[in-house]
Amino acid sequence: MSFTQALKARWSSSNSLVCVGLDPEPAKFPKRFAGDDDAVFAFCRDIADATAEYACAFKPQIAHFAALSAEDALQRLIAHLHEKHPGVPVILDAKRGDIGSTAQQYAREAFDRYAADAVTANPYLGRDSVQPFLDRADRGVVILCRTSNPGAGDLQDLMVDGRPLYQRVAEKVANEWNTQGNCALVVGATWPEQLREVRAIIGDMPILVPGVGAQGGDAEAVVRNASTQDGTGLLVSSSRAILYASSGEDYADAAARAACALRDMINAAR
Amino acid sequence: MSFTQALKARWSSSNSLVCVGLDPEPAKFPKRFAGDDDAVFAFCRDIADATAEYACAFKPQIAHFAALSAEDALQRLIAHLHEKHPGVPVILDAKRGDIGSTAQQYAREAFDRYAADAVTANPYLGRDSVQPFLDRADRGVVILCRTSNPGAGDLQDLMVDGRPLYQRVAEKVANEWNTQGNCALVVGATWPEQLREVRAIIGDMPILVPGVGAQGGDAEAVVRNASTQDGTGLLVSSSRAILYASSGEDYADAAARAACALRDMINAAR
Repeated sequence: MSFTQALKARWSSSNSLVCVGLDPEPAKFPKRFAGDDDAVFAFCRDIADATAEYACAFKPQIAHFAALSAEDALQRLIAHLHEKHPGVPVILDAKRGDIGSTAQQYAREAFDRYAADAVTANPYLGRDSVQPFLDRADRGVVILCRTSNPGAGDLQDLMVDGRPLYQRVAEKVANEWNTQGNCALVVGATWPEQLREVRAIIGDMPILVPGVGAQGGDAEAVVRNASTQDGTGLLVSSSRAILYASSGEDYADAAARAACALRDMINAAR
Repeated sequence: MSFTQALKARWSSSNSLVCVGLDPEPAKFPKRFAGDDDAVFAFCRDIADATAEYACAFKPQIAHFAALSAEDALQRLIAHLHEKHPGVPVILDAKRGDIGSTAQQYAREAFDRYAADAVTANPYLGRDSVQPFLDRADRGVVILCRTSNPGAGDLQDLMVDGRPLYQRVAEKVANEWNTQGNCALVVGATWPEQLREVRAIIGDMPILVPGVGAQGGDAEAVVRNASTQDGTGLLVSSSRAILYASSGEDYADAAARAACALRDMINAAR
């Protein structure tokens, strides 16, 4: 089954558009993990197990593991997700991008070593830098389009022939790069109008939407502007607001409540 | 000493603009490494030790280690480079780029975990995505501008207000991002004219130039178009042509000869 098919199946079976981001920061872990040599794995596992029923996907962010020399924990975590939560796609958030021969190594890292179902990628180096990911028809490639951070506009909003660069990226991915149907785009929740414009360009391609927190002020605008006709097409990603919903003994329950609340808020707008 | 100062000192002491890229591919290793559990480290160490006298910098490419689960080898390799070849800056080629809070984790990965003197970064997410790297005044940030791969132009050559995007990136880095004087740019050797245009924008900022092989057809054009007035300002990077100059027992000597030949070819044009 392709990434896109798996995602569609999961949207349907979970009735959720929530993507649970797994960004471990040990300083924020509950006290019970103090002194635990395997805290990174154990904390992420507990959060994932508690939130799985509300998740259309999981998204571990690799820098948070790499900074801690915790590649082994990431590998075991993804294996755990596949084993305990089959049918929930795992997106490795790595934002890789390099010349073709090096991109092949990054594809091996994401898909073979970590067994991720999809990986995030940066389009700045152009098509051949994404090709090794695109070639893996059974895996997904989630390409940065309009990101959620304050400096996103520095390059992404520059006008090219009267249209912002991020729209050109959306067009390129939709019309040229997505030949295997395994592409998705990243567009931040902080820009509902831009979500609408991108959706108009890309048809039913999935959009990963970071930037919606527990407060979820914009969840309704995100759904209104960017869902597909069947009310799906979105992975609304939340990390810190779910992971660190409580620093007490109820951390897993609190994470589940936060994920459930976000799912419900989104579903109310669908 | 800052990265830029260290680089200037090394340009002077080595009389070389050659940056030796360390991209291990075990399938290309000499036969003697077959069955060696530590082949990735040992091969890169041998190449580095053999080529150090011709090198103004070393550039390990992280994907080649990550695809092999060889983070430990990379860490030991960089420690070896610092110990045996002090004064030769180490650039971790990782092309990282993410929102600010995640970029902090990538900065920890590159500078604290791996102790790299500089890291390559992707500008697509804008200034705040590079800021955690920029803030480390003692380390360097080598930002992608115009890359050497076939698809580079897909985004980088798009015209923004009558000028290609890569020139806007050069301007932003030179005029806005380089407040600590620790930035450099990547511009491929395959585009001598573009090297000249970028040099005109950025003053004396160092340029990392991939795309020159052992043949070095363009080394002369690179130097003519992009060196600074004192004949430096460039890190001309070569990886495969040095690493795999011979697959026999003379692999280290062959690598040294290739690095020496590239240095001489470049110096003949300075």
